[in-house]
Amino acid sequence: MKRIFHALLVLAVITACTGNPASETAGPQSASTNAPGCEWPKVNPDLSVEFKVELPDADKVAVDICGEIYSMSKDEDGLWTVTVDPQEPGFHYYFLIIDGKRVADPCSQHFYGCATMASGIDIPEAGCDFYLPDGNVPRGEVRRERYWSRVEDGARVCYVYVPAEYGQNPLKRYPVLYLQHGGGEDETGWIRQGKTDVIMDRLIAQGLAEPMLIVMEFGQSGGDFGKILLEETIPMIDSKFRTIADSRHRAMAGLSMGGGQSWSIGLKHPEVFANIGIFSSGMFGGVRYAPFDLETELPELLADPAAFNDNLDLFYISCGETDPRITHTQAAVETMREKGAEIHFSAFPGGHEWQPWRKSIHEFAQLVFKNN
Amino acid sequence: MKRIFHALLVLAVITACTGNPASETAGPQSASTNAPGCEWPKVNPDLSVEFKVELPDADKVAVDICGEIYSMSKDEDGLWTVTVDPQEPGFHYYFLIIDGKRVADPCSQHFYGCATMASGIDIPEAGCDFYLPDGNVPRGEVRRERYWSRVEDGARVCYVYVPAEYGQNPLKRYPVLYLQHGGGEDETGWIRQGKTDVIMDRLIAQGLAEPMLIVMEFGQSGGDFGKILLEETIPMIDSKFRTIADSRHRAMAGLSMGGGQSWSIGLKHPEVFANIGIFSSGMFGGVRYAPFDLETELPELLADPAAFNDNLDLFYISCGETDPRITHTQAAVETMREKGAEIHFSAFPGGHEWQPWRKSIHEFAQLVFKNN
Repeated sequence: MKRIFHALLVLAVITACTGNPASETAGPQSASTNAPGCEWPKVNPDLSVEFKVELPDADKVAVDICGEIYSMSKDEDGLWTVTVDPQEPGFHYYFLIIDGKRVADPCSQHFYGCATMASGIDIPEAGCDFYLPDGNVPRGEVRRERYWSRVEDGARVCYVYVPAEYGQNPLKRYPVLYLQHGGGEDETGWIRQGKTDVIMDRLIAQGLAEPMLIVMEFGQSGGDFGKILLEETIPMIDSKFRTIADSRHRAMAGLSMGGGQSWSIGLKHPEVFANIGIFSSGMFGGVRYAPFDLETELPELLADPAAFNDNLDLFYISCGETDPRITHTQAAVETMREKGAEIHFSAFPGGHEWQPWRKSIHEFAQLVFKNN
Repeated sequence: MKRIFHALLVLAVITACTGNPASETAGPQSASTNAPGCEWPKVNPDLSVEFKVELPDADKVAVDICGEIYSMSKDEDGLWTVTVDPQEPGFHYYFLIIDGKRVADPCSQHFYGCATMASGIDIPEAGCDFYLPDGNVPRGEVRRERYWSRVEDGARVCYVYVPAEYGQNPLKRYPVLYLQHGGGEDETGWIRQGKTDVIMDRLIAQGLAEPMLIVMEFGQSGGDFGKILLEETIPMIDSKFRTIADSRHRAMAGLSMGGGQSWSIGLKHPEVFANIGIFSSGMFGGVRYAPFDLETELPELLADPAAFNDNLDLFYISCGETDPRITHTQAAVETMREKGAEIHFSAFPGGHEWQPWRKSIHEFAQLVFKNN
């Protein structure tokens, strides 16, 4: 990619949050993710969370939030209650454990995560509104597309974010980002947990991101996913939407498992994708993963760094600062850079969580499709 | 409306199911509504349902299906199990009751119903495939539309079914059906539980229904819903989509509470809607409802039956044969007919349930927008 242009791009990126201190809240607030009519869980000003549920006949109740288990105890009204430690800002899955059974809290909206229907809680971040609804920007649509997969011999569903201007420009064609969820999640995650539609509406309205289509597929189809994406999803999207059907105007990005797929499917098909985003992937090595070996993983870079870079308009990698994957990710980025790879790397506060992923798509969207 | 044309229409309608006897199944089948990887609940050939869950530490477990409570008992493997009576074909909400707490089953997909996130089970109906995916028909889209409501001063979401041909006919304009969910449900119900997109794809492909847009809104906004629909939703849809923006090409229909809204909002605004569908509404009187008084409810019919009929192209009413609402609905239909109202009335097997509603939209869609 053109270094100078890239340098300008980096300057053009706006950071997700102002970092302003928390605005004083009038004590505990019901979470924005609660079900209608439910007062608890409540987020306290210090971001600790109070849970309170009515379970008159249960013997043992606990809250499981991000894998941390907190036992609940009965208060004077006979309600089970616990206040859990201050949480990182952003979206977290949680469950109630009722006499040993982990279930979604009826007082929360439900989200597909942890490979099941989970409750979720959104912890606000001070000075951060880039993913919150704005009454004053034109809104894109999210379209639910059903199509028949010959690979699976069954019906599949994907979601497509369509920018607000799409309908007003009947002759204009658009670049496409294929954006994948993480392990144990599905094609609804980037909209429901990630707020990608809200983030894109705001960036496009501000002129900070190119209007683009964003396709969100279900990635847990085993080894077939690459085949489905390349042979069925992309042709379907290119035939149904006004796309610019070439690699420079096509991107693949994803979080965690989806980041690994952006590498194994996206980066391995430069004739299809010239823009790659890898958010919080474990593929760079670590406790649960094989060591990252450039020789095996990216021989094309070693063979011809110039050609490797020329094939890519954007090679973006990000990770949460407290994500266990950060060390190996940074090391891999360094190794690839030493061999001449041009990489845009960012670390965001937080762990293996949605807030860094919201910030990753917010930044990636400002960088991609700019030098066409 | 034109009687003769209407008579022809009635002939043109195809019934939803062949009524063929059940095809022999190889014993119990995991429900189509189960979460990925979950074997139970299983539907037996006689439509009884076997539930089996692992709850080692629970003292008391039960299944609540359609309000019927079945206690579970531990089997030899220490799993809680129960086989419930044969169920009516169609979609039913259910819950697990774990030591007194009613929660959604993690082994089911979750649906918004009964005013909470519920588990659901789809019981197949022999000879009935009008709502099952067909690999050979062009598929419409469901678009998630976010817009700002001044009435509520907040963001709202509605879903819009867009027929497959919409994108191929950039100059063609389409009629619009506003289709409302029932009490305790939301704007996702007609697609997720009702399979309206699948039903419409098949009818349109067979040439049995006019290609139309179907808008599904959230109706539980108190007294404001009529104001929001008439002053905000309809203008938004007419500006964003290629609609035919007149009463003859606009319909309102709904189930249960949504049927009452089709009466109180739709039928009361003939200048906006010339097509009305009321499915399984309690508004015609009964135990939980005030008696139906034509004088109060429909003075315009008594005042001028001819004008009343001329304002409507379709006045459709349906109810489940075993729905407690059927008696009062039939009586009200008779009363209105005696006063000269032209009404298409249908009763379908089943109670206050989704299968009659799937059959109602399947029939309504074949009758509406035909004589324009």
